[in-house]
Amino acid sequence: MKRSMYAGCVRSEHIGQTMTLKGWVARRRDLGGLIFIDLRDREGLMQLVINPEDVSESVMATAENLRNEFVIEATGRVAAREQVNSNLPTGAVELKIEALTILNEAKTTPFEIKDGVEAADDTRLRYRYLDLRRPEMLANFKLRAKVTHAIRNYLDGLEFIDVETPMLTKSTPEGARDYLVPSRVSQGHFYALPQSPQIIKQLLMNAGFDRYYQIVKCFRDEDLRGDRQPEFTQVDLETSFLSEQEIQDITEGMIAKVMKEVKGLEVTLPFPRMTYDDAMNYYGSDKPDTRFEMLLQDLTELVKGLDFKVFSEAPAVKAIVVKNQADSYSRKAIDKLADFAKQFGAKGLAWVKYTDGKLTGPIAKFLTAAEEKLTAALQLEENDMVLFVADKLDVANTALGALRLRLAKELDMVDKSKFNFLWVVDWPMFEWSEEEGRYVSAHHPFTLPASESAHELNGDLAKVRALAYDIVLNGYELGGGSLRINQRELQEQMLRALGFSDQEAQEQFGFLLEAMDYGFPPHGGLALGLDRLVMLLAGQDNIREVIAFPKNNRAIDPMTQAPSLVSDEQLKELALQVNHYEEND
Amino acid sequence: MKRSMYAGCVRSEHIGQTMTLKGWVARRRDLGGLIFIDLRDREGLMQLVINPEDVSESVMATAENLRNEFVIEATGRVAAREQVNSNLPTGAVELKIEALTILNEAKTTPFEIKDGVEAADDTRLRYRYLDLRRPEMLANFKLRAKVTHAIRNYLDGLEFIDVETPMLTKSTPEGARDYLVPSRVSQGHFYALPQSPQIIKQLLMNAGFDRYYQIVKCFRDEDLRGDRQPEFTQVDLETSFLSEQEIQDITEGMIAKVMKEVKGLEVTLPFPRMTYDDAMNYYGSDKPDTRFEMLLQDLTELVKGLDFKVFSEAPAVKAIVVKNQADSYSRKAIDKLADFAKQFGAKGLAWVKYTDGKLTGPIAKFLTAAEEKLTAALQLEENDMVLFVADKLDVANTALGALRLRLAKELDMVDKSKFNFLWVVDWPMFEWSEEEGRYVSAHHPFTLPASESAHELNGDLAKVRALAYDIVLNGYELGGGSLRINQRELQEQMLRALGFSDQEAQEQFGFLLEAMDYGFPPHGGLALGLDRLVMLLAGQDNIREVIAFPKNNRAIDPMTQAPSLVSDEQLKELALQVNHYEEND
Repeated sequence: MKRSMYAGCVRSEHIGQTMTLKGWVARRRDLGGLIFIDLRDREGLMQLVINPEDVSESVMATAENLRNEFVIEATGRVAAREQVNSNLPTGAVELKIEALTILNEAKTTPFEIKDGVEAADDTRLRYRYLDLRRPEMLANFKLRAKVTHAIRNYLDGLEFIDVETPMLTKSTPEGARDYLVPSRVSQGHFYALPQSPQIIKQLLMNAGFDRYYQIVKCFRDEDLRGDRQPEFTQVDLETSFLSEQEIQDITEGMIAKVMKEVKGLEVTLPFPRMTYDDAMNYYGSDKPDTRFEMLLQDLTELVKGLDFKVFSEAPAVKAIVVKNQADSYSRKAIDKLADFAKQFGAKGLAWVKYTDGKLTGPIAKFLTAAEEKLTAALQLEENDMVLFVADKLDVANTALGALRLRLAKELDMVDKSKFNFLWVVDWPMFEWSEEEGRYVSAHHPFTLPASESAHELNGDLAKVRALAYDIVLNGYELGGGSLRINQRELQEQMLRALGFSDQEAQEQFGFLLEAMDYGFPPHGGLALGLDRLVMLLAGQDNIREVIAFPKNNRAIDPMTQAPSLVSDEQLKELALQVNHYEEND
Repeated sequence: MKRSMYAGCVRSEHIGQTMTLKGWVARRRDLGGLIFIDLRDREGLMQLVINPEDVSESVMATAENLRNEFVIEATGRVAAREQVNSNLPTGAVELKIEALTILNEAKTTPFEIKDGVEAADDTRLRYRYLDLRRPEMLANFKLRAKVTHAIRNYLDGLEFIDVETPMLTKSTPEGARDYLVPSRVSQGHFYALPQSPQIIKQLLMNAGFDRYYQIVKCFRDEDLRGDRQPEFTQVDLETSFLSEQEIQDITEGMIAKVMKEVKGLEVTLPFPRMTYDDAMNYYGSDKPDTRFEMLLQDLTELVKGLDFKVFSEAPAVKAIVVKNQADSYSRKAIDKLADFAKQFGAKGLAWVKYTDGKLTGPIAKFLTAAEEKLTAALQLEENDMVLFVADKLDVANTALGALRLRLAKELDMVDKSKFNFLWVVDWPMFEWSEEEGRYVSAHHPFTLPASESAHELNGDLAKVRALAYDIVLNGYELGGGSLRINQRELQEQMLRALGFSDQEAQEQFGFLLEAMDYGFPPHGGLALGLDRLVMLLAGQDNIREVIAFPKNNRAIDPMTQAPSLVSDEQLKELALQVNHYEEND
């Protein structure tokens, strides 16, 4: 029989109709001689009732054989329930069964199919098809599809052209680690899976496509954590002839449409803009979470005159005020905060509490001379606690920024209903990499420098500013973009500044440089992390919850056991040999 | 200055407006003291006029410096042209320049940027960004984006859920050759890029998603030809609880919507259905081009009594009639056809012409006894030519099917304005592979056998029929689908029939078999080749024309030079070694 509709969609208006429903047995109860089945399909649960007085013995026998997760087909008449279950959208009706067929059977599942299931991560991934049966998981993927639908229709409406870029691309050393794909035809040579279609989309601008977008898989072979996966999805766009402002406007319109269509929320446009320097100075982060205050305050000048060298001689002294929680933090609890701050490079964490109208705590005595000014500057009130980091400015910012986030979580200061979007603008072009002992791109080597600072490419790299902009949501970097270089000399200069020899520049990026010889238009764009956006909209805190078949933190799929060993024949065709001794390293 | 609109969109209604346009110099002409520029952007060409009497000397100097493919910004007033160019949508207007800026310069391009350009394939690919500037190329990609837009909105409207499946998957030996991706974390282990998300989408049905779709990149490491690339794109869908007919109806609705929105054509639904056997017997192909007749005719019985053993003792004698072209084919030309037929396994090609009311040609004398019946059966008319293959049935079919296509091309018999869609149904489950000396899946090992033939899985595999259906357009296989197996025992039986030991079945497909233990619903689906569909809609005969950055036939991208050598460091992290001596094999 043909299914009449989704079980989860049956309502009072259908009472009296005869229907066929198909789905999974979520629960069977035998009650007063009747059998009650909760039938589950992707739209919800619906109650079926089997009354031995109404059905044949064989239907009754079938019903008695049903177990959880059996797939069944049930035909009957929709009736009003005697006792309405107001927790279920179908709670006013039930299906009085006339015919019943088992379409497939099921063993006992390794975990119960219901929301809030507790199972080990790898068990969930090993039986992902069961994990995805849980209504909250399915809801995540419906939401994800709605998000991409809204994005695509918005961009299609603005005449962006959806273009697919290659997955088998060239490996470039700048950026994260590439996933490689050995070539069989050109043995010893490798493709790389794209970390992003950055250069290719720029070339589409050179081709005159004018407005490009793509929702595209990208790949990075890095160590994994909650919001990282080997493969992730990017909403990627690029435009010609537009200003930063115009690109940001387009992006804001897109986000507003998503928020409206997916969450039913009106967001206020334009989004706030914050300079990179302000973000670092007030939030200690280049992706500030503005859903709560507790800003970083600069006390460097205020403490200069004190006879307390830890403060007075520090390059920077910064603080955050934990309002009305001094009594919640024992010395031990504060020691934990100090340990945490040290992970971010701080040498220590100083603190005072404001109790009975005065500063208390081990360093209070050193601050006496500035107590009044401090109290005023920090607007201290009874039961406040102040945490100080005296260090290099960037260390103080980063450590207090991290503490700010931790405390907000600990103290439940975040209004989770808020979606705080903002732009972080006016970025430095480079950041110093301690690891590599050189300046690296804060974004990527194709970012256009602000013209007034471009001369510093031959001078002080720390002073070069980028025409770049990141979009931030609730403390997560949602994406970033920039105007791009379209002049060959400037691009060459940029690569030299990053330490490329002319030969290396040519080998790696020769095709881009050459393309700049042929009328490369001014252009710029942006990329958004789709997984992260959907994760935040779904109220989840791990992107695995919005990726259908993710890898675990060893980059393994516990279901298929990928990656796996391959045959000698396959390796031979690729002229590859595995150095097995390396496995024991 | 902000661009007012696309240059290619300016029309008479804009006369009198002052606008700023941006784009590429397609041509510059100096005529009677004036300079005329054809400005090109993605929407078309627009004429700019620079009159030395109207502009400053510096604008004039700039104009004189312009060369082809310079990127410019031009501001001026839209005016009516004295001589309308009716070949151009913008042909009634021109822009009288007041200000002019060069945004970027261009060297002489390696080939001219215009439609019908003649350049070597690798040159086009090496400078793909220039190749894509040609209006006909850009049109292909606009069309492609329109196709995917129409497909997505259609499927979204039917509540299909767009789900992304993994790119880093498990290598399986069944099917084509995999592209492998070495794992760094699990050294010596490899992911495979998906040849299709077949199993994964089935698992989404097991997860209760009910209707899934995705427009997804797939990968096959096979030797390349016109309609094959290492990576290609599939419109992939899967449904639960639906019949073959319902899945075909959904597909037809999708195609109809694409044809309407993209080509403005109404297609007649439902599409014709042809059994696999009929397709082979009448067209000599499992993807018949029905835009022209010249069907294969079966003469086996008719020639049985003849004293001409070549025919009377052959397992099958089949023929095609080339209408009214006997005089176009010399013996030499027919010899070429015979050579062609031999490529498809035919031992020879017999022929007669029908001239002056009788059969002529070298074998005519052997056919005298059946001449009347033959003439009647083949409905021969003056100047017809008959080509015969006497051989095993499948050889006769295949050879004549190939000849039929070749002759149609040679004789220009195909109405290129037609879009002939049809379903080929009632497939055999297996086909015999001479290469492997065993039966292989005609589709894939997850296809549901027709229930009345399923018992032959333990008997004569040639007799097992599949609940499979291919969709064909103009002689191209556009896609195919089937109902799938959802019962563990049947799936195990199928794998055994394909020669898998129980252990191999478990190793390769254990996760699918296990999934069948937990209430796997009845399901089925389909996949369409997007590149091929777009190629046909764009009137192209190579999928490269509808892929932005394709590989050449050595699977190389001449632009980026991917694949390329990678560093020892990269190989070391993957514990891989290249056997360089293999390169000299």
